Parts: sequence; C-alpha cells; structure tokens
Amino acid sequence: MDYLHQIREQKPLIHHLTNFVTIADCAQITRSVGALPVMAHAQEEVEEMVQLASALVLNIGTLTPEFVEAQITAAQAANKKGIPVVLDIVGCGATKLRTQAVQDILRRCEVTCIKGNAAEISVLAGANAVVRGVEAESAAENLEELMHQLAAAYQAVIIATGEVDIIVSEKDIRNNKTGHAIMGEVVGTGCMAGSVLGAFLAVAEPKHYLEAAIEAMLFYGKAGEKAGKSAKGALDFKSRFFDAIQND
Amino acid sequence: MDYLHQIREQKPLIHHLTNFVTIADCAQITRSVGALPVMAHAQEEVEEMVQLASALVLNIGTLTPEFVEAQITAAQAANKKGIPVVLDIVGCGATKLRTQAVQDILRRCEVTCIKGNAAEISVLAGANAVVRGVEAESAAENLEELMHQLAAAYQAVIIATGEVDIIVSEKDIRNNKTGHAIMGEVVGTGCMAGSVLGAFLAVAEPKHYLEAAIEAMLFYGKAGEKAGKSAKGALDFKSRFFDAIQND
Amino acid sequence: MDYLHQIREQKPLIHHLTNFVTIADCAQITRSVGALPVMAHAQEEVEEMVQLASALVLNIGTLTPEFVEAQITAAQAANKKGIPVVLDIVGCGATKLRTQAVQDILRRCEVTCIKGNAAEISVLAGANAVVRGVEAESAAENLEELMHQLAAAYQAVIIATGEVDIIVSEKDIRNNKTGHAIMGEVVGTGCMAGSVLGAFLAVAEPKHYLEAAIEAMLFYGKAGEKAGKSAKGALDFKSRFFDAIQND
Repeated sequence: MDYLHQIREQKPLIHHLTNFVTIADCAQITRSVGALPVMAHAQEEVEEMVQLASALVLNIGTLTPEFVEAQITAAQAANKKGIPVVLDIVGCGATKLRTQAVQDILRRCEVTCIKGNAAEISVLAGANAVVRGVEAESAAENLEELMHQLAAAYQAVIIATGEVDIIVSEKDIRNNKTGHAIMGEVVGTGCMAGSVLGAFLAVAEPKHYLEAAIEAMLFYGKAGEKAGKSAKGALDFKSRFFDAIQND
Repeated sequence: MDYLHQIREQKPLIHHLTNFVTIADCAQITRSVGALPVMAHAQEEVEEMVQLASALVLNIGTLTPEFVEAQITAAQAANKKGIPVVLDIVGCGATKLRTQAVQDILRRCEVTCIKGNAAEISVLAGANAVVRGVEAESAAENLEELMHQLAAAYQAVIIATGEVDIIVSEKDIRNNKTGHAIMGEVVGTGCMAGSVLGAFLAVAEPKHYLEAAIEAMLFYGKAGEKAGKSAKGALDFKSRFFDAIQND
Repeated sequence: MDYLHQIREQKPLIHHLTNFVTIADCAQITRSVGALPVMAHAQEEVEEMVQLASALVLNIGTLTPEFVEAQITAAQAANKKGIPVVLDIVGCGATKLRTQAVQDILRRCEVTCIKGNAAEISVLAGANAVVRGVEAESAAENLEELMHQLAAAYQAVIIATGEVDIIVSEKDIRNNKTGHAIMGEVVGTGCMAGSVLGAFLAVAEPKHYLEAAIEAMLFYGKAGEKAGKSAKGALDFKSRFFDAIQND
C-alpha cells in the first residue's frame, strides 16, 4: 500500500478542529504531504464541512467547552459518514476540563486513532501520571498494557509519542524509533503528526488503519531525521521538515 | 499613481477581522508592504478601531456567527467613515454558514473589493460550482460575465484568483498572469493578498479603486515570481516573499 | 544570579493567555529560552492550569470581554499562588475596550510587570498619547515620571518599549539600548518579549523582580542584535532570533 502515493493522487480534504497555536503549521503540513486542509470550528457548519472531508482531526490544545461541543458534532457526523477521526489529547491530565473533554468525546463518538504523549495516554487509561501543561513528566510503568486496554475499549489505534513512539491496536504493538531530538524543541511537531495521521488514514481502508497509522508515524519520523540532520535551529528545521514531508 | 510609495509614506492602518490560520502571515505582510496591521475582532471595539484605520480587511476563513456579526459592525463603521473594505470569501459554497455569511455582509454593508477563487465567486453569483473546503474544484463557465454582474450588483471590484487572476469592475476586466506555481502549495498566499489589497486601496481615491486593486495584484504576483524563482520550499518561499514585498 | 541557567535547569511552565496573532511565536520563544509554554484560555481551566505554572503571561492583543475575564481569573489564581504575572497592554488607548480591560485587570489582580510601548504606557498613566492600532504615535513628555507613579501605584515593574526601553520600579530606572532596528518590522517581537520576561521572572525571587526584568530585556535585545546583524529579512531574522535566544 503506498499511502503517500494515494494521498497525492486523491488529495483528500482533512477537516481540522485544532488549537490556535499550531493551526497554521497543521494546515501547511497537510498541504505539504499532498492533502488539502480545511480549518472550520463553528458548530453551525462542522457537520456540513465533514461531508466534504475524508478525515477529521481533533486537537484540544486550546479547547473551550463550545469548541469541544463542535468537535463532538463533527466527529458524530464523521462516524455517520464513515471517515476516520484522529484525536490528539493535548494536555489530558493537566486540567479536569481537558481530561473530561477527552472522555466526553470518546463516550459520544468513535475515534479511529487516539494520540498523546506517554503521560496523557496514561491519564486517559486511569493511571497515575504527571502532565505539566502539555508536557509528559511521568508516565505509567505498564504503559503498553494500558494502551492495549484502551485500544480494546475504544476500538482505536492508540499512539503514545516520545523518543520512541508506541503504536498499538487491541492485539498488535509497534515501536517507532525514527525522529530527531530537535523535534522536542520545535513547537508544533506533536500537532502536525496528527494532521499527517489524518491524511494517511483518509486513504486507508478501515481494516488497514493500524498499518496506515504506523506508516504515517514512520514517514513522519524519517522526514524529521532528514530535516534534523542539517537543521541550524527551530525555524530552519521547520522549513526543512515541510520540504522533507513534501518531497519524499 | 505610485501606490507603494504612498503606502510607505502614509503607513495606513489596516484593520483586519481575519481567520486564525493565516492571521500572523496577514499581519506580517501588511507590515512588510509598509502599512500597519491591527487585528481586532471584539464586537465591543471594532467600531472604534475602524476610526483609526484606513482600510478594513474581512476574511471568513474560520468564521463563527459572532465573528461575522463583528465583521458587519466593523464594515458598517468603515462605510460611514468612507474607507475601503476588502472581503475574502474563503470557503463560500462549502457550507451554508459561509455562503450566508457572505450574503449577509453584502446585504448589510458596502464592500469595495470581493475576492475569492473561481469556484467561490461562481457560487456567490448563484452559479453551480464545487468548493471543496477552501479549494476550487469547478467553476462556472461564464465566470467573467457573472463577475461583471456581481460588480454591478455590489458596485465592487470582483477578483477571482487562480493561475490567472481575473479582476473586474462593472465594465472593465483585467487578467493578471503574474505569480508562481509554488504559491498554490503555501498556506496563506490567498489571505495575504487580501491584506495587500487593503493597503493599496487604503491610499487610493475611490475613483481609482479598480486600478489600485489591479496594481496590488500585479505587485503581489511579481513578488511571488521573484520569491518563487529561488525558493527551496514552502517556508523558504514565504521568507523570500516577505522580503520581495518589502523591498520592491 | 544567572537567570538563564536557572530557566534551563528548572524548565518553568509559563502559562499564557495571549493573542492569536503571535501565539505560535510566543510558544516557540518560551521553549527556545529553555522554559515550557502552555497556552490555555478557557475560563473553566485557567485556575487549575495556573497551579502547574511558574509564571503567567497576559496579552490583550486580540481580546474579547470573555477572554479578559479568564485572564483575571487566571491572574487571581496566580496571585494566590504567589507566581509572577506579566501584562502586555497591546493597544491600550486605541479603544475603550482595551483601556478598560487593562484597568480592570489592574484593579482586580496584582501584576508583577506591566509592559507596553511608550504611548500605551502614557495612556495607562492618564496622560495624552496617541495609539494607532497597536503602534505608538506620540507619548507623554514626562514619561519616566509617569512610569514611576505607575510603579508605585501598582507595585509593579513598568516597561516602556521602544528604540530605547525604559524599565522602572517605584524608585529605580534603567534604560536598555540593546536591540536592532529590524525588530520593528517583524510582527511578534513585542509579544515575545513578554514571554521571555515571564520565563525570567518565573525563576526570580520577588525581591529581584526588577533585576530579573532588566536582565530579560537586555538578553532579549542582545539576541536581537546578534540575529539582526546577519538577517536577510523578517522571517530570516525570526529564525536567527530563536536560535540566538536558545544558544546564548
């Protein structure tokens, strides 16, 4: 399955309800990978916008209750249409609002892929972990086991990002060791992975969602390695990274 | 008329109510061209902010009903003050919210210049066209004729952007073939054109609005050509583009 | 006191309620200086997020009444916790909403450091001054005297930015002549200074807040000089500036 090839041929529309810090980066990376971004969060239009989309990407980085409600409306429409939904649980565990937002979304919608750092994923699984703002401070020791439980409970691909990303389904597990240390210093690298996941899932059949998610993360990390090798700093990395994503 | 010279001498304040994806780019390009940007969207302050401004730029890229209401309040104040209003109809036709927002704005305010891609402009003229998110998928065949009708109905300059931009008034028409293919891959190039249009219109007399809009689009496209010739990628293009806009 | 060293060792979390134009820049500069950014503005979570933070940065660049209310809630929690609060009074004097928002915040919370351009600070002190959008057009002649009065009234460090920054406490005053002319052409350089102030204040003892603010502004200006010397344009400056901030 050449997902990249299919993305560039089909140019799937990736509908985002994302945060306002990295919204521009998410739009650019979506276009760079070969898909089309649309950022639309008004409750009054999200159902209709989903009808045009091939995947939905939700990110709670700068959430408000109204924003989450629009995310749920969009995700329910995505479920009805049968397109994949990516959920980035930014800051889950840092505040009750964030933890409950994630729980609300997962209770009321089906999500194809849940992504967070190791601490956010631990909190979601009910384990003790420390999330400082949007940073992982400590995670559960039995993280992989918890991830399998989450995958089973939500019938979703679960991704815990970090130096080594862990990607699991109910039964399978895969480590992704690609990537570059500089990515931890560049704001937006977490959120942009959600957009690339959206693009890969958009062109995948449901039975291949795990494989597509793994491919997306490998592709993402390799582009990061390539860009990181010669990057002179954070913004120079970002520039090279968009190019690596576009030209691979 | 050397509009650029006047912009740099007068440093007109360009008040934006724009989307949250490209808001930083719009602010930077406004400054790069020699004008001053202010981004302010609270219903409670837009009338007062307009009093300080020389042009108003509206963009519905990430609209909500409240945001559109503030845009209308701002535009009515701009009409009263006699300053030009640019409206970028991002995604018009993709959802009812967007199409109706544009119609509401045009019913309740006078707009100097309406800008969109060929599909968005077609939808505004009541023709069949397909807008996928914020992309033109198909446009009306008699687009130029429709644009003249829109120009007459709204007494506005109408701009349909694309590989060749079409700029029309009620009676005149002009094609702009400047630009560079990479601009289609860089998020923000559409929205930033609205800011540059605002700056050019801000220093133009009303009888020269068409000419100023044409000059703005030619200038914009030529800067894109210059930047595109040597650009290594999307972000490198943006960097060179800001410089070309500033230094021409 | 090596504040920079302490920032990089402690990695303090800097909670921002900032504007949507420069929110990405503020997040990146916070990380580049060695701290951790979190951007969170929902009324429902700001108190809780403040508990994780070591400093709070408020910026009214794209304010709404609800946003200001959340800023006040966050600042009151910061006061209770005893962490420093930076307030950037973007556009104070341009509209009543902005002037009153600043007055409301200062009436209902204690602020550690108030930052604005010379005109914004003049308006806050009740003097005549012209603020055009977010630009200083004219300031009070007795600015330094007014700043001492503000410092006394609010028991805060007052910073008036410009070609020469003026930094005052009730009794002390310091001029900062570092910086580079290009910073005036790059959107975000004002707001990002607020983030760096937040990081420096986060690791300072209260009795050293003035010193920490001075150190922050000197460090910031010197990084600007270094980046400005070789910068080819606005975005190239920003790239070099992040690197100078990170590597000094």
